[in-house]
Formats: sequence, C-alpha cells, structure tokens
Amino acid sequence: MGDRGGTGGSRRRRTGSRHSTQVTEEEVRGGPAGPDVGAGGDAPGPAPAKDRDAVVGSSPRELSCHRLQESLFSSDSGFSNYRGILNWCVVMLVLSNARLFLENLIKYGILVDPIQVVSLFLKDPYSWPALCLVIVANVFAVAAFQIEKRLAVGALTEQAGLLLHMTNLTTILCLPASVAFLVDSITPVGSVLALLVYTIVFLKLFSYRDVNQWCRELRARAKTGEGRPGPGTRTAKASLGASTDKANGAAAQRLVNYPDNLTYGDLYYFLFAPTLCYELNFPRSPRIRKRFLLRRLLEMLFLTQLQVGLIQQWMVPTIQNSMKPFKDMDYSRIIERLLKLAVPNHLIWLIFFYWLFHSCLNVVAELMKFGDREFYRDWWNAESVSYFWQNWNIPVHKWCIRHFYKRMLRWGAYKWIARTGVFLASAFFHEYLVSIPLRMFRLWAFTGMMAQIPLAWITNRFLMGNYGNAVVWLTLIIGQPVAVLMYVHDYYVLHHEAAPPTA
Amino acid sequence: MGDRGGTGGSRRRRTGSRHSTQVTEEEVRGGPAGPDVGAGGDAPGPAPAKDRDAVVGSSPRELSCHRLQESLFSSDSGFSNYRGILNWCVVMLVLSNARLFLENLIKYGILVDPIQVVSLFLKDPYSWPALCLVIVANVFAVAAFQIEKRLAVGALTEQAGLLLHMTNLTTILCLPASVAFLVDSITPVGSVLALLVYTIVFLKLFSYRDVNQWCRELRARAKTGEGRPGPGTRTAKASLGASTDKANGAAAQRLVNYPDNLTYGDLYYFLFAPTLCYELNFPRSPRIRKRFLLRRLLEMLFLTQLQVGLIQQWMVPTIQNSMKPFKDMDYSRIIERLLKLAVPNHLIWLIFFYWLFHSCLNVVAELMKFGDREFYRDWWNAESVSYFWQNWNIPVHKWCIRHFYKRMLRWGAYKWIARTGVFLASAFFHEYLVSIPLRMFRLWAFTGMMAQIPLAWITNRFLMGNYGNAVVWLTLIIGQPVAVLMYVHDYYVLHHEAAPPTA
Repeated sequence: MGDRGGTGGSRRRRTGSRHSTQVTEEEVRGGPAGPDVGAGGDAPGPAPAKDRDAVVGSSPRELSCHRLQESLFSSDSGFSNYRGILNWCVVMLVLSNARLFLENLIKYGILVDPIQVVSLFLKDPYSWPALCLVIVANVFAVAAFQIEKRLAVGALTEQAGLLLHMTNLTTILCLPASVAFLVDSITPVGSVLALLVYTIVFLKLFSYRDVNQWCRELRARAKTGEGRPGPGTRTAKASLGASTDKANGAAAQRLVNYPDNLTYGDLYYFLFAPTLCYELNFPRSPRIRKRFLLRRLLEMLFLTQLQVGLIQQWMVPTIQNSMKPFKDMDYSRIIERLLKLAVPNHLIWLIFFYWLFHSCLNVVAELMKFGDREFYRDWWNAESVSYFWQNWNIPVHKWCIRHFYKRMLRWGAYKWIARTGVFLASAFFHEYLVSIPLRMFRLWAFTGMMAQIPLAWITNRFLMGNYGNAVVWLTLIIGQPVAVLMYVHDYYVLHHEAAPPTA
Repeated sequence: MGDRGGTGGSRRRRTGSRHSTQVTEEEVRGGPAGPDVGAGGDAPGPAPAKDRDAVVGSSPRELSCHRLQESLFSSDSGFSNYRGILNWCVVMLVLSNARLFLENLIKYGILVDPIQVVSLFLKDPYSWPALCLVIVANVFAVAAFQIEKRLAVGALTEQAGLLLHMTNLTTILCLPASVAFLVDSITPVGSVLALLVYTIVFLKLFSYRDVNQWCRELRARAKTGEGRPGPGTRTAKASLGASTDKANGAAAQRLVNYPDNLTYGDLYYFLFAPTLCYELNFPRSPRIRKRFLLRRLLEMLFLTQLQVGLIQQWMVPTIQNSMKPFKDMDYSRIIERLLKLAVPNHLIWLIFFYWLFHSCLNVVAELMKFGDREFYRDWWNAESVSYFWQNWNIPVHKWCIRHFYKRMLRWGAYKWIARTGVFLASAFFHEYLVSIPLRMFRLWAFTGMMAQIPLAWITNRFLMGNYGNAVVWLTLIIGQPVAVLMYVHDYYVLHHEAAPPTA
C-alpha cells in the first residue's frame, strides 16, 4: 500500500485508457474538477512530498477522490492486459506437478532402477537377436547398392531392377517381423528397436532407388537431346548435379554427378544421415561446432535418464493401478486413471520429442556435417490436426510427400485419395511397430492413425485459431494415453490374467 | 501429412525467416539450386497439381530436397513463436483439475450440503447475536452524525468533537469484539461477519469525520479571506463543491456545499456505497443499466453456490486429511498436503475476488447509481508485491492513502515509516477479524501481513518483469494456505484434541 517505486512500468502501460476515462468524467460531472483530479486515487510520485508542506486539507484533491469509471472486467472498460495470467498458468502447473511428484514419492518410494532397464533389452545374456537383426540389415543395403550399380551400367533392365528392388524391400519388412515372432529370446523392446531400424532402412532404400531411377531417366533424356542447346538440357544437367556456370568459384562444393554417386561411402553416409530422402549432393555444414555438439550430447544423456526415471517412477505405477478399474469396467475410475496417466505420458512424449528430434538428430547431423537441420517445424502452434502431422516429424513428412503423395498424384489419384493413402501407410507402420513386438493384433494404433483423417477434417472445418490449437493439444494429451492403456490392458490380460494384480 | 488446406496463416508467419535461410543456403552451396529449391520440402499449394503433368522425375526440385538450415530450438534459428504453449498451459490446467475433481468425487462422494451452511451462522435458532450487532451499528453512525451536526453549527468545540469521535470509534471496535468473546451463542462465521461490518463502519466514519473537518477548515479560511479575490478563494470554494462558472449547464449535477451535506440521506448513502472514502459529491452514473445489473446478480448467486460447493467438497476434506501429518510433524506429507490445499484455496480466493470486487460491489454501485467502479486494478500483472497490495483492493487502498499514509507524511513521518504504519494497521485488522471469532491469538495473520514488508522490498529490489510476477503469484498461492492451515490446526488442537480425527 505504501511503496510506489519500481511500478512505473506497469502503470505507464495503462495511461492510455486512464486519460480517456478522465475526459468522460469531466464531461459528465462538468464540475470544478481540476486537471489533477484524475490522479486523486493514484497519488503519483511527487504528490505525497508536496502534501507535507501543504496546509491540512487545503487541496481539493483530498475532498473528491472518486471518478466516474467502469471496473476493469466490465467490457465497457476496454481493458485487455491479462499478461500476468500466463505466469499464473506456469506457476500453477509447476506447483501441481511438484505436488504430484511428492505424492508419488511418498506413495511408492524411489522406483528408478537403471539395472532393470537392461532386462528390457535382454532376456538371455548370451543371445542378442535384436542386435544380430540390425547387423543383418547391412545385407539389404548392399543388395540395393549392387542392383543400382548394375542398373547404372545397363547390366540389368529397368523391369528386372524394379523386380529385384521390390523383392529386397519386401524382405526388409518381413524378415524382422518373422524373427520377432519366432525367436523366443527377443524382448518386446528389443524387437521394437530392430523393427524401427528395418523400417528406416526400408524407407531410405525406397528413396535411394527412386532418386537413382530419376537420375537415369534424366541422363537418358539429356543424351537424346544432345547437340540441341536449350533450357531443357541445362535443367537436366543441373539436376544431375553438374557444376554449371554459377558454381565455378573456389568456395563452391564439388558436386557429384549421377553414376559417380554409386559408392559405398555415399550409401553409408545416406544410411546414417538424419534424413529419409536420398539426394546426390546433401547440403553440408562447414565444420563440426564442438560446443554445440557437447550441449546436444549432454542433453541426450540427461534426457535419456529423465525419461527412464519418469517412466519407472510415474507411468508404471499409474498403469498398474489402472488395471483393476479396467477389468471391473468402472467407468468413472477409468476416466480418472486415464487423466492421471495423461500428464506423465504427455510430459514424457514432449521430452522424447525434444530428445529425439532436437538432441539426437542434431548430434548425428553435427557429427556427419549434415546441413539440413529441419527435423521439426512449429507444430506447437498447430491450429489444425493436419498442420500438426505436417510439421512434427519432418523427415517422415518429407519422405511421404516426395515418394508417396506426389507419386500418387502423378499416377492420377485425387488429392484426398493420396492424402488418405499417406495416413493408411502411416497407420500400417505404426501398427507394424507395435503389434509385432507385443505379438498381438488389436489395431488400436491403426485405428488411432486413421481417426486422424476425420479429426483433421473437423478441425480444419470448424475450429480456428486458439480453439483449433487447444483441440490439437487435447488430441495429443488424451489420445496417446488411450492407445497406451488399450495395449497395456490387452497385454496384461494376455500375459498376467492368472497372476494377482501387482498393485 | 496430406492435407495442406487452412494452414496458410500459420505458414505465412514464418516466411520471413524462411527466405533468409534460403539466401544463405544458395551462397554456401553455390550450386545449381533454382529459386524453387526452398519450397522443396514444403510443396506449397499449386506444386502437386503441376507435377501431375510433369514427366516423372524431370524437375530438379525432386532431386534436391534438403537445405542448409538450423533446427528451430537452436538459438541460431532466430525462431521465437511459442504462442501455442499458452494454449498448452490452459489445456493442461483444465485436464489436471478435471482429474482432481473426479478423484475427489470418487473418494468422498458428494459432500455439498446447503443446509449445513445455515448452521455456520446459527447455533441457537432463537438467538441472532450477529444480526443484532449489525443493527446496533446504526447507533454509532447516528452518534457520529450528531457530533458532526453540532460541530457544523459551532455547538461543540473542535477538541470536544475530536474526543467524542474518538470515543465513538473506539467503541465501534471494542463492542463487537467483547460480544464475540462473551456471548456463547455466536458462531465464528457470524462473528466474522459482524466484525467485518463494524470494521467497515469504523473506516467509513473515520473518513466521514476527516472530510467534514477539512470542509470546516476550508470554510473558515474562505471566510477570513473574504473580499480579497484570488485563486486561493476560488480553489477553496471549488473544493467546497460550489458550482463555479464551468458548471452552469443544465446537464450539470447540482453540487452540495459543506453544511448541506449533513443529512441522514447523505450519511446512509455513504454507509451503503461501495467505498470507504467520504466525499460530498460522489460521481453518479446516469441510470441503472438493467442488463448489467441482472448479469452481475446472476454471477453473484452462481458464484456464491460455487464457493460453498468448492469449500465443502474440496477444501474441508483436504484440511481434515492434513491434521494427522501436522500432528505427527511428518514434513514431506505436510508439504504435500499444503500443495494439495493450495490449488482449491487459490481457486476459491480467485472466485471470491471476482465475486466480491466485481459482482457484489458492482451490484451495489449499480443500484445506488454510484459512478466510481474502480474496485480493483490490474493486480494480476503485478511485478512486485507492493504493486499487488496497491491494486487488488482499491477501496481499502484509497482509504489507507487518503486517511493514513498522507496524514503520517503531513505529520512529518518518513515515507518508509508511513508505509510500515499502513502495513501494521492492515495487519492489526486482519488479526482482529480472525483471532476474535476463533477466540485464540496466534498472530499468524499479523505475521503474514508484516512479512509482506520485507517481501515487497526483496521483489522490488531483485526481481523484475515476469519473474517478479511469478513470485507474486507464488506468494498468493502458497502464502494463504499456510496461514489457513496454521489457524485450522491450532483451532483443531484446541477444540478436538480429545476426539478422534475425522479422516
């Protein structure tokens, strides 16, 4: 009530509306109010000092201290500065989660156990099926390379090449799936990782084949059009990566032309690079920034620990406690458990997103001097579900656009069919990565992905701006734990039906 | 991944940074990249349609789809649009509280019981001591009025008037306190309300006496300076409320001069008006807006129900559950309980703030056509504790400045002494309103108010901007439940020590 230092900033912001109120007041009252009446209740800086010398009660400001004005919440006041509410949200969120954390610690004690993590990857310490699978993946990469090598020199026809590539790619998807099914010593986590690696190799080799084929077509067209100078030839040559007039400076990177790219070095650079789309000449960063690399590495290590800790301490007990309500079909408790699970699940997903797309991929890119670091765009501002899907996972999105969506459009498909096709393919891979390791087919992930199509349509059509953004967040926060609970519940029923519940 | 309709807005915002990246990329690569390379990964509107007609793989855009660029989270990217995070905060808060609400319902069932509320006000249905006390308060108002009436005509000397007023004001504070102590049939809630009414009457009559005295002094000076025309006279006259040259229009309100204001009508208008500072001519609103009044009335009724419901359903069980950890001095559980109590306590306080300062006071003001609706300012943006105290309760703040702070400055006190004095007076009244109804003196409220002085100093000195704002919120959210728990704990120990704990 006393101090009025340091608040000048906050007060200054409101001066605009203050003045307008003062004017209307003088108009309405029409009384003897002097120009300093408006400051009556405020008593700005120098006023109290002046009062010390003034005769008691002599100033008219003392007698009239009210002005005709509206409350700030009334719409007539025109006030709209609720900046502090954001801070309130942050403080409330931090406090709520601090309490949840403390409650969890009191209830369960410390559950974090790094040794337990190892058991997720290994059942039998002398059998490493997942690692073997990953090493075997090299065979398929080499096979694709050899096919391309023969195609480049014309030792294989295009038809034979296509057939061989398709066989190769199909095997890439089928081999790990059958191993995950048939080998008993593989753990679910190990087989998820192996399947993930194989999926990535599949997408990369698909892109590798496509780009090399395009290059051959361009080379063929450049040959037939030889001798005839024109813009077409120049474009074709440029696309092949030949140095044109522009790139004759010493600073220019040496660009690789089509058949020269078919080396093991180039193939393995692409296989390890943080992208799914092959290109003959990737943009390269000039040097490895050591401080940047170190920061990302530390983030990587710390966030890995944090994720493991949060899952063990927070998610596992919550999921275990959810099993009983699920079995009893006690709906209000199911919803309560779902909301309780939603918070840690969402936080872990956010950490995972940052860990994978910012820390890990940037570490890999920095080590390989890979220039294109756009692994994600601003999906957090997404005002529609489709904007989210287009921007949260750029490597996959880029691959889908380049090798799937545009291809379907070229084949004459309607846009909405191509779009549905992309979601179908995505849904297939989601289901592939979840169902096979768990050895049960429930189609929850598939349904979840396919549900995005009507959801995207609805949010695009009916919700704009902040409402759309809130719906996107809600989908993320609620949708994921629903799917997680579904799978965990079914897995639990399958494997622990006879055993008594843990919690 | 597929749909790209409706996201133009979000994408357009990022165009600026996009272009600059593209330029650096072309500089670095120096390659044959055409002007449409930048859009490679994006595939804006017309691109897919064009591709349908294009020969497969003919466009160079297909071959190079990467650009040299930083990730958005890297500081080098210059990206700073995290608008969506605010929506995330809101969604997370709503979901967390929805879960808490559901958990509470499952745990306790429905505890809301409107009949129980009546028992808080009445112990014995035939004895209404609190209501009697409120009615008796009229006696003191009439006494103050009669003293002023006699002072105005000179039937009493200023000294005698001051003495009588002081006796009157002291009695106002002492009578309800002694009744609350001695009468057994008064409930704590009833006596809080009675004490609150008496405190308001005390502050109002204090202001009434002050302003009337200032008017007498001005009248005396105007008389002695009569015949000598000058700005001093004009000011004095103006302050007395006389219509000057400005106020001769028909629209001007008839202004009341000093002795004419001493009527019962004027006194009771002031006693019921939503202000603590007396003034001869209050600003008046032109008419009663019926829609505005109805909205505020509905808010008043609904929020009253909501507050009672939240207290019965959420706060009471939480407080009851806190008693055991408090008795056992189990610190981690005490903190957990405190944080659990902080959320409902804070929400109820926010609702209470809106209910009292926006709904109730605006209803009263609208009914009385009272013009000055500034009952609160934008304390939610407060960047320091002192800004909060200056802006959350404007009627009290105005009174403190006008009748306490400035008076102390006129008496020659230093600013910091005057400031401390204001907090001391405020702390006294807080303690008065809590200790007497509970019939125990613990000084928690007094300490809480006095702790604001060092806190205000610290926040003013070390914390600026959003950090200061966050600290203010933290003080509000954490400070209040600490005080509440302290009193409840002590009250519980005093009254229920022998009885077994309820929860």
